[in-house]
Amino acid sequence: MNAPEPVAAEAAGAMGRWIAGRARARAARGGARSTRAATGLYDLASNDYLSLARDPRLAAAASAAEREFGTSAAASRVVVGTLPVHEELETSLCALTGRGHALAFSSGYTANLGLLGALGGPGTTMILDEHVHASLVDGARLSRSRTLTAAHNRHDDVARLLAARDTPRAVVAVESVYSVLGDAADLAGLAAVCAEHDAVLVVDEAHSIGVHGAGAVAAAGLAHDPRVVTTATLSKALGAQGGAVLGSGDFGAALREHLVDSARTFVFDTGLAPGPAAAAAQAARIVAADPALPGRLAERSAQIVAALAPATGLDVGCGAVHSARVGSAEGAAAAAAELRRRGIAAGCFRPPSVPDGISRLRFTARAGQEPGELGRALDDVVSVVSGIQRKGIPA
Amino acid sequence: MNAPEPVAAEAAGAMGRWIAGRARARAARGGARSTRAATGLYDLASNDYLSLARDPRLAAAASAAEREFGTSAAASRVVVGTLPVHEELETSLCALTGRGHALAFSSGYTANLGLLGALGGPGTTMILDEHVHASLVDGARLSRSRTLTAAHNRHDDVARLLAARDTPRAVVAVESVYSVLGDAADLAGLAAVCAEHDAVLVVDEAHSIGVHGAGAVAAAGLAHDPRVVTTATLSKALGAQGGAVLGSGDFGAALREHLVDSARTFVFDTGLAPGPAAAAAQAARIVAADPALPGRLAERSAQIVAALAPATGLDVGCGAVHSARVGSAEGAAAAAAELRRRGIAAGCFRPPSVPDGISRLRFTARAGQEPGELGRALDDVVSVVSGIQRKGIPA
Ligand SMILES: Cc1ncc(COP(=O)(O)O)c(C=O)c1O
Ligand SMILES: Cc1ncc(COP(=O)(O)O)c(C=O)c1O
Repeated sequence: MNAPEPVAAEAAGAMGRWIAGRARARAARGGARSTRAATGLYDLASNDYLSLARDPRLAAAASAAEREFGTSAAASRVVVGTLPVHEELETSLCALTGRGHALAFSSGYTANLGLLGALGGPGTTMILDEHVHASLVDGARLSRSRTLTAAHNRHDDVARLLAARDTPRAVVAVESVYSVLGDAADLAGLAAVCAEHDAVLVVDEAHSIGVHGAGAVAAAGLAHDPRVVTTATLSKALGAQGGAVLGSGDFGAALREHLVDSARTFVFDTGLAPGPAAAAAQAARIVAADPALPGRLAERSAQIVAALAPATGLDVGCGAVHSARVGSAEGAAAAAAELRRRGIAAGCFRPPSVPDGISRLRFTARAGQEPGELGRALDDVVSVVSGIQRKGIPA
Repeated sequence: MNAPEPVAAEAAGAMGRWIAGRARARAARGGARSTRAATGLYDLASNDYLSLARDPRLAAAASAAEREFGTSAAASRVVVGTLPVHEELETSLCALTGRGHALAFSSGYTANLGLLGALGGPGTTMILDEHVHASLVDGARLSRSRTLTAAHNRHDDVARLLAARDTPRAVVAVESVYSVLGDAADLAGLAAVCAEHDAVLVVDEAHSIGVHGAGAVAAAGLAHDPRVVTTATLSKALGAQGGAVLGSGDFGAALREHLVDSARTFVFDTGLAPGPAAAAAQAARIVAADPALPGRLAERSAQIVAALAPATGLDVGCGAVHSARVGSAEGAAAAAAELRRRGIAAGCFRPPSVPDGISRLRFTARAGQEPGELGRALDDVVSVVSGIQRKGIPA
């Protein structure tokens, strides 16, 4: 299944010509994405932050659930698809994060779509930080709410937009740790702004749950704040697949029931499969029981920063994600290709996938990285990235 | 995790009051959805049509993949998440359906969102059959295309809308077997209309892949038609989780690359987890190798029709899905509750979840149902449903 040459695809008429044109434009830009396999590469790219995806305890939990409940939930959970393993997952996510109520979805993407869709509508203004993930942008669009973009990490902008709104309800959506730049939101500050202006704060914890143990909402002392709603993905630090919406207090309980009734990606989607649900539940229990695990990740993250920051002007993240600016999109692609030749997988983010429009290589830390091996990979990264930054595309 | 009493949830201000109001409205309607567990009920509700979700061969395949590749794809497939098991899945879906190219997604829902989002835009008109699934409706909305609704199963309406369009490109989206009413689309007729008017035909095979072996697109002789694009879910007859987009010919190949680059739910979503991918691949191989399996499902489906049609005026589906009209939403809920008391799970669909606005109980056949046990369950269904239809809500 290699990338085919762009073809005219005349057989499908106007659509075929349009798609062929898009393919030619990508080829000219040199920027076509591909589904390249990672097999055999040293991983500086994945989101398996706690190295739990390959932990035998998760595989064992998944296998046991598959034998007990089958390999599919086989229906929407409102039809017949709720299994004990879903309740186990929701309970363990609450225990990990300190939140009171949880509802699992089939992915982090569909959790965000379902939540924003169910909170939105004509009476709601949605304010999104300009760097939020595609799934929050799509969720706001599906909700048919008036949607506004706030300057990145600027409370004053959020407050200004909230004050000027003309709807009774408002939702502010941010990420606790942003997925490409790795920088953090000031959640306590945002929660205060939202309380002052009667808004709900949605915090996407995709890159902080597990990374920061209980997550950034808990770290900010907001786990019991009913006005703060968390979304989580189970596919990153929790080493599985799926997503969840979490809340607290009476509002958290009412929100959960509201989503069961109104979130389209819950009502009209098959429940999360038993295997991934059990693996994520097991991961949540492991993280809750082993406070040293996020510490090991933090050490590897610090090692990456120490090695790369001086030589590459790294944008240092506050979790496991760091990124280095590379001049052009071609330069970023060439650097990623050169790293691959040296056996290293790094994330390559180019417009339009970078929130600030600057092409970047992204490096992620993982708790299970062996320091010596990581060090050798980072030597290669320094030489490739600083080389590209100095001279442009390498020969 | 029982449904809480509707609470004021004042702590969350305007949003809390709004959600509490919605909960009161649901309670007044008597129609709140819940995540009731199916444990211990006789299953006439799930979509596990070929009884593969509990087949030990699928659990074994999932376990093996989890041990070999881990419990998560750990990143988007364009970053680093493509695994051999994804290629194995795509190959086996092509082998089953006779289509040339496949791309797997994390769910059927996200496959539909990603496909329509990537085909749409200002130059595309989308025409949706009025009964299509929420995921196709949401996908059309996300695509920012002009979107029109065609009368259910009316080619002439589709042709009229296509002829009147003012965009170069057009997409017609239908289901091969509709999820609630169970009726079929005339795919050959629709493909001819689409060819005449230069449109792409998207066929959601959620309720026909596996049910009809290779699926309805293949049965209609359209497996090689580049203008016909299939979406599949892996969570129903294939007993797993996930989704896929399939196409054929040069256009199918170009479309696959286009989706890898442009489908937001592919680019910005973690790849399908190895366990579900392997389970679905195994299911596809089982279905391809055992033509008798859909035949066993067809026998059970015929048994349901024979038992229920005379007494309940069943709307007979063409696959594994049949439904009986029940006067009111309350009547449908009461009938479903009475069946549950008798140990039977049936689908209960009320407005707004019914495409035609008529409250219905839905009954699904499965290949593994034992005829005697099914017969006894159907006796109960006849007595409960015809009782409700005669007298209204039972005492
Ligand atoms: C910030 C953020 N939110 C949501 C998601 C979607 O989660 P998932 O991949 O589990 O669907 C991702 C990544 O994919 C993400 O980075
Ligand atoms: C017609 C149809 N399309 C798509 C879907 C979504 O598939 P999945 O549940 O795998 O996300 C469903 C059912 O959930 C469906 O019935």
